[in-house]
Formats: sequence, structure tokens, C-alpha cells
Amino acid sequence: MLRKPYLLFLGDISDPSSAKTALGLKDWCGPDVSGQLRLPGCVVDLEIPDITPDEAVRRGAGSLVIGVANFGGIIPESWFASLHAAVAAGLDVVSGAHKRLEDVPGLADAAAARGVALHNVRHSNRSFAVGTGRKRSGLRLLTVGTDCALGKKYTALAVAKGLNDAGIAATFRATGQTGIMISGEGVAIDAVVADFVAGAAEALSPDNLDQHWDVIEGQGALFHPAYAAVTLGLIHGSQPDAIVLCHDPLRDTIYAYPDYPIPDLAVAIDHYLHAGRLTNPAIRCVGISVNTSKMTDDQAEILCAEYTSRLGLPTFDPVRHGVAGLIARLRKDFELGAV
Amino acid sequence: MLRKPYLLFLGDISDPSSAKTALGLKDWCGPDVSGQLRLPGCVVDLEIPDITPDEAVRRGAGSLVIGVANFGGIIPESWFASLHAAVAAGLDVVSGAHKRLEDVPGLADAAAARGVALHNVRHSNRSFAVGTGRKRSGLRLLTVGTDCALGKKYTALAVAKGLNDAGIAATFRATGQTGIMISGEGVAIDAVVADFVAGAAEALSPDNLDQHWDVIEGQGALFHPAYAAVTLGLIHGSQPDAIVLCHDPLRDTIYAYPDYPIPDLAVAIDHYLHAGRLTNPAIRCVGISVNTSKMTDDQAEILCAEYTSRLGLPTFDPVRHGVAGLIARLRKDFELGAV
Repeated sequence: MLRKPYLLFLGDISDPSSAKTALGLKDWCGPDVSGQLRLPGCVVDLEIPDITPDEAVRRGAGSLVIGVANFGGIIPESWFASLHAAVAAGLDVVSGAHKRLEDVPGLADAAAARGVALHNVRHSNRSFAVGTGRKRSGLRLLTVGTDCALGKKYTALAVAKGLNDAGIAATFRATGQTGIMISGEGVAIDAVVADFVAGAAEALSPDNLDQHWDVIEGQGALFHPAYAAVTLGLIHGSQPDAIVLCHDPLRDTIYAYPDYPIPDLAVAIDHYLHAGRLTNPAIRCVGISVNTSKMTDDQAEILCAEYTSRLGLPTFDPVRHGVAGLIARLRKDFELGAV
Repeated sequence: MLRKPYLLFLGDISDPSSAKTALGLKDWCGPDVSGQLRLPGCVVDLEIPDITPDEAVRRGAGSLVIGVANFGGIIPESWFASLHAAVAAGLDVVSGAHKRLEDVPGLADAAAARGVALHNVRHSNRSFAVGTGRKRSGLRLLTVGTDCALGKKYTALAVAKGLNDAGIAATFRATGQTGIMISGEGVAIDAVVADFVAGAAEALSPDNLDQHWDVIEGQGALFHPAYAAVTLGLIHGSQPDAIVLCHDPLRDTIYAYPDYPIPDLAVAIDHYLHAGRLTNPAIRCVGISVNTSKMTDDQAEILCAEYTSRLGLPTFDPVRHGVAGLIARLRKDFELGAV
């Protein structure tokens, strides 16, 4: 459990694209962000107050979050002083880097002395039980994909928010580092030892009220030659009642695996339903989330209409269209009733 | 890489069934076993020489192997003196326990001072690359199962030996702790971080001669609510040309999961071939390995004949029948030619 609100640390980054984590946090948990901390040379401005760690503490902040990803996941020396200043001010420090915060000279001792925590969200320091396969109470939706990195986190966040906005109880369940920072908790599922992946997914979405939705962030893809194991364990442990298939219509092959084609959407849905039936025979696909960011409005409409007609499922870009069509489908399929 | 030959340590065990590892080592790498070391009260006798660590070293031994599994995977205090004596004599120590050898008071320091190694084969201390999905040279056979713990290791060992005996180059590739002790190397695949399971399986069976077989020990089952992720990653990384399905005809449900039925054999084969086609479209099933240990000869013959006729595949119990039928099938399917 991470301590909010956050002070977002941007360091001295020269490449705006490496600030994705900070931008995601600002977009999805803006009210939980107190300000930004930037070093000379930083080219990114989140257009929120520039404040020091001490000022952040006065405003009630609980953690400094490293909001940028360096190539190789390192923590450069030029950041060390800022991290120590955060600890000295009484903030926890949260990092998604490969390198652990404990590798920053003196930081672990300083944190222990000050009574604050260091969180390496890419690493799992929890141990999990082996999966039980037991059916849990409550409803679950899992986002799945035809590939990695095409909108599964964004879609899950948008669906959880859409359900809550519609008066239907829902909780976003994070399985990756940025998702964990946004929600303040979760499990970096790909960092769990293989034997315990399904068990970790079970722990992530425990028994709940019958009409409550856990909206679980998907990972990887069943068609991915490296990551399908993570995906399958997450499906089995999540035992979803509903899946939403996420797809990038401009991608022909798995990202960085040019010999591996993106499957046909109907085939992909079949595979996911087949895998999911092991732990939830009632699993169904309720929609297609497409990334149309590089299309015109007309192109996006034509694409969504074609998918909807071919697959019989609401098709939407959560950024462009929102998720109203999907929420309507969930109401109908699961008899959630009007509010 | 473990140092053979082995001195097998049996401790003071009172339950013969907990000596499975030692019995497997005696059966499958007997020439690499120098003797046994037993404490007062031990009820198991492997019928090999009782020798001290010093005597084992004089006979050329390289490691003391803990050949028994205690409930909970602990290392009891009554064993500490023997482990220290092994280190003092110059033996490496190999353990498959959950608890690490480094937790035995003073053992790590003693090993460092003496220049010997402590191997916890249940834990992975190697890091692996992410899977590439690249097709490798050489041939691969993977044993798969309708459940856990029904003969996948034994079948793989028997097939590797059968191929070698028939003059066909083959290497057993271990993926579990006992297999690793038998072959002296391998990867405890279920202890690998989920993101790297396929990559670890790729590393386990690297490029090889075109006519060489890697015979890979399977793990888990695709129908297992806890372990299917391990199984799928191992399939994808192994990219097998051939699979052998292992089955216990007396089991109706997944072991310890009474709500999960054992699948029909034809359905199971379909699922495995479907999963394997992602990284090797030419995958085929070449045989069924059945555990008939609780049947009479007649019952076993009837069962195998029925499976063979129904599935069109050689069906055999590797203990009762050997693997000649399977080797003949491999020769035919892969045009291996007579020797």
C-alpha cells in the first residue's frame, strides 16, 4: 500500500517520452498529486506546482514517486540528492526502476532512521500461496490483448471509472508498476515466481460483494512467445466473468517479434475464452477496445462499426469514445439494472 | 553444474516415502553414486555402501546430496553436523529443500573457507533473458501431462535413455529439483520469475546438431488451476517437435483439486498441440505414457490397446513395457533411420 498524495519526481530528463509514468499518474490520480520536483535540464513540465520535498510534506504528501523511466531502468547519480532530501523530509520513495532504491548509497539506512519506506514496485517482496482455483464471490472483468502495450491498463482504468460514474461499485486492480502507483496498491504480476502467478492473481481480487466489479489490468498476450505464461496465470487466477479484448489495428506482428503475427480478433477471443473457462466456465467477451490514436474520426468510426458488426460486440476507443457502450453491455449481460 | 559423484544423505528419516529423491538418484544415476550417509534411527537402506564424507572424498565424490524431503522442506538441526562434516571434507552440498543451506548456522562461512559450493536447486540463482521465440536447430521432445506428479520426469529419463541405447543422440533436460540432481544440471523452471519462464526454457535446450534430441522434463499441466502458467511457458520456450502425454488412468480429478476434472486424452492432446504451435507449428504428439503400477499385466495390456486404438498413438508404461514402441514411432515420424 503506497502512501498518497504523491510528489512526482521528473529528474533531469531530456526525453519527454520517458515521462509516461508521471503523465499517467497526473491523468488517473490527479487529485492525489501534490506537485512536481524537477532538476535543472528537465524538459518536461506537468503544469502542476514545482515544490520541494519539505513543501510537499507540508501539503500532506506521503511519497516521492519517480515518474520517469531511464533507459535500462537505472537510478542515475544526479538523482541521489533529491531522493535523500525526500527521505529527510519524511516522504516514502516509490520507484519502478529495475535497480532497487536500496542500491542508492546510504538511502536504506537514512529511510530506516527516518522511519519511511522504500518501495520498488517492479519487484515483488510479498510471497503468495499457490492458486486454489476456488470460485470467489463478486464479479470480475479482465482486459486482455492481441499484444503487449496497446491499452490494457488504460482500458481497465477507464472501465473502472465508467462503472463507478454509473453508480456500479468497481475497483481497479493493478498488475503492473504504473498501475500500482496509480491505485496505490497491486501486484507486479510479471515479477512473481512462476509457480505462484495464479495464486497472486487470486490474492489481488479477493471475495467481494456479489454486485461488485474488480476491473483487473491485463498483462502480456496469449500469442506472445515470451509472456504468454504470465497472461495465462493471470487469467486463471482472476477467473474473470467478462473480458475486454484490447487491440491496435495498425499492428500486424507482435511488438519486437516480427515473426509472430497478431491473431485475427475472433480467433483471439476464442483463445482467451477457452483459457478462462478452466476457472470460470461462465466467462464471456463483452467488448473490443481499440487504439485509434493515429486515425481520423471517420476512420475510427468505420473501423469500430466493422468490428461491431463482425463480432457482435461493442467496439470503442476509450480515449475517443469513452466506455458508455461497454457499460450498457455489462448492464444487459449481467442484469445490473439501471441506477 | 553439480559435481558428481554423489554421497547420498538420508538423515534420520522415519518415513520411507520421503526418500524418493535418493531412490530416483540411485535408479537413474547409480554409477554416479558413491554411497549413503545415514544417522541413527534412519529406516531406509539404499543397499549401497555406508561411508563417511571423508571416505566419499577418497572415492572421488564431489557432493553430498540431501536425498530426503522433510515435511515443509526444512533442514532439521539433527542434520547440521553431517552437513558441516561434508563441507569440512571438501564436498559441495546439494539441497532440494525450501529452506536454503545458507540458513544452517555457520555453513556458508565454512563452505567459503573450504572453497566448496552450496546448491539450493529449488531456488534459481541464475537470471534469464526474455524469450525470443527464435527457432533453434536440433530436435526436442517434451513430456506433458493430464496432471502433475504422474510420471513426466520418469518418462523423459526413460525416453532419453532409450534414444541413446538405440544409437540416437539425446540429452535429458531437467526442469525440477530431482531431475537436476540426476542430470547434474538444469533449471528449476517453477522457481523462475514469471516474465522469464519461456526464456529460461529456451536457455535450457540451446541450438544443437540437427539430429540431436533434447528430451525435456515437463512440469504441471495446462488443466491445472495453479500451475498452467509454468506449463505454458515451458512449452513455448521448449518449442517441442514432439510431445508425449503422461497420464494416470486411476485419477479422475487434478491431484488435490477435486473440483477440476482430468481431461479426456484426445482433448488434452489437442490443447497441448494448440499451445505448442505458437513457437513450433510442426509439433506433433508421438505417444501416451501411462502409469499402470496399480494394475495387473492383463489390465495394463487392455488399457494400452484401447488407448492405442482410440488415439492412434503408441501407448506404454515406461516401467512395465520400456520405450521401444515410442522410439520406433520417432524413427518413422522423423525419418531418423536405422542404426
